[in-house]
Amino acid sequence: MAKLVLIRHGQSEWNALNLFNGWVDTKLSDKGVAQAKTAGDLLAKEGIQFDQAYTSVLTRAITTLHYALEEAGQLFIPEAKSWRLNERHYGALQGLNKADAAAKYGDEQVHQWRRSYDVLPPLLTEQTETVEVLGKTYPAFDRRYADVPEGQLPFGENLKVTLERVLPFWESNISKDLKAGKNVVIAAHGNSLRALVKHIENISDDDILGVEIANGQPLVYDLDANLNVISKKTLTTEA
Amino acid sequence: MAKLVLIRHGQSEWNALNLFNGWVDTKLSDKGVAQAKTAGDLLAKEGIQFDQAYTSVLTRAITTLHYALEEAGQLFIPEAKSWRLNERHYGALQGLNKADAAAKYGDEQVHQWRRSYDVLPPLLTEQTETVEVLGKTYPAFDRRYADVPEGQLPFGENLKVTLERVLPFWESNISKDLKAGKNVVIAAHGNSLRALVKHIENISDDDILGVEIANGQPLVYDLDANLNVISKKTLTTEA
Repeated sequence: MAKLVLIRHGQSEWNALNLFNGWVDTKLSDKGVAQAKTAGDLLAKEGIQFDQAYTSVLTRAITTLHYALEEAGQLFIPEAKSWRLNERHYGALQGLNKADAAAKYGDEQVHQWRRSYDVLPPLLTEQTETVEVLGKTYPAFDRRYADVPEGQLPFGENLKVTLERVLPFWESNISKDLKAGKNVVIAAHGNSLRALVKHIENISDDDILGVEIANGQPLVYDLDANLNVISKKTLTTEA
Repeated sequence: MAKLVLIRHGQSEWNALNLFNGWVDTKLSDKGVAQAKTAGDLLAKEGIQFDQAYTSVLTRAITTLHYALEEAGQLFIPEAKSWRLNERHYGALQGLNKADAAAKYGDEQVHQWRRSYDVLPPLLTEQTETVEVLGKTYPAFDRRYADVPEGQLPFGENLKVTLERVLPFWESNISKDLKAGKNVVIAAHGNSLRALVKHIENISDDDILGVEIANGQPLVYDLDANLNVISKKTLTTEA
């Protein structure tokens, strides 16, 4: 038996501004830092001893992991990062304000882009080099993605495609640790974690649309040796 | 050609109290956090793009690495931790105030323990479970050392012994990365880094005694493919 804990990063600067974030590498807001530390406190109270940590290559998830592990007194455990745990790539929506997008494209269209399982957002092109937001430019991609296999760099994803690129890392690394009885913590993103939850709990394409994961509230699974869910709970400071 | 950057962690809480620190897992002081961030700013200005990070399993080194990499915008690079990069184990001196130790054992004795290459400090015993300091107890060892090979857990080290346990990790990991042309950053400790510097620069047992590495001032080496030093400089905010 092993424990798997999923932590969605704390609020980012762009979450606070209501912008589509995706692969743009934003930082945690002050509230996000506090949420990450609270997640660590909750894990410390729960008494879980981790053997391995995973996170994405995006700063908001990495720092969430670090703050949480420091609070839990377990910053010393091995950590591996993968682009496959990144947030869903939001294509050409990245950097747009969600309310502005609704005004421009209509509520129904934006709702479909945000919540449907298999509708793709408008895509970036291979020629897109920067994304401009609030008068600043951000690289569309950078050297952290140099190792992504040819043809697999996404220019816009739905949840289905996100799941397809998360799964190889689940199979090659995370599930092996869990089958070996290791307790694993993953700090990642709303949609890469929803993809994992869909896989772990075998949730249908329709039902996953109703699943939300709150920032900084650890989701704790007890899994058997075949990775069936024995029990599941969310850690929260709320009564 | 590759770059190797060594960063001694920022001031720890016990550095600030003038206590022998060793393997006791203390945190950075506020000054130490500021030093770590400054190290990252200096690296950003230098424009070094890292491929791999290494650190110890002690919180003050790990957090120094994280603050520095975040400031440098490179938190996404792979990171590996090893007990072999830990500070020198200070044996039964851990937790003693350096001035109190001098009053008790004499200046000359304490100077020898601190600065000689091959004089061992008073050792912990295999039965030592906790170290008591300022009314609090700290574990002498804990589960992060479960993977240390049988018989290799130190109970007190001089610089010579520290070098002997650092070197296998240098050979198995760090030197391979450098020979492959990767730029490497190591955030570690005064004595594990002095041991590495002795090895890299081929410094004599006598001359290494005069070598000090300042907290949070990155030491930058340019190395050729045989790991010979082409150039060396220390990054500092001082004019």
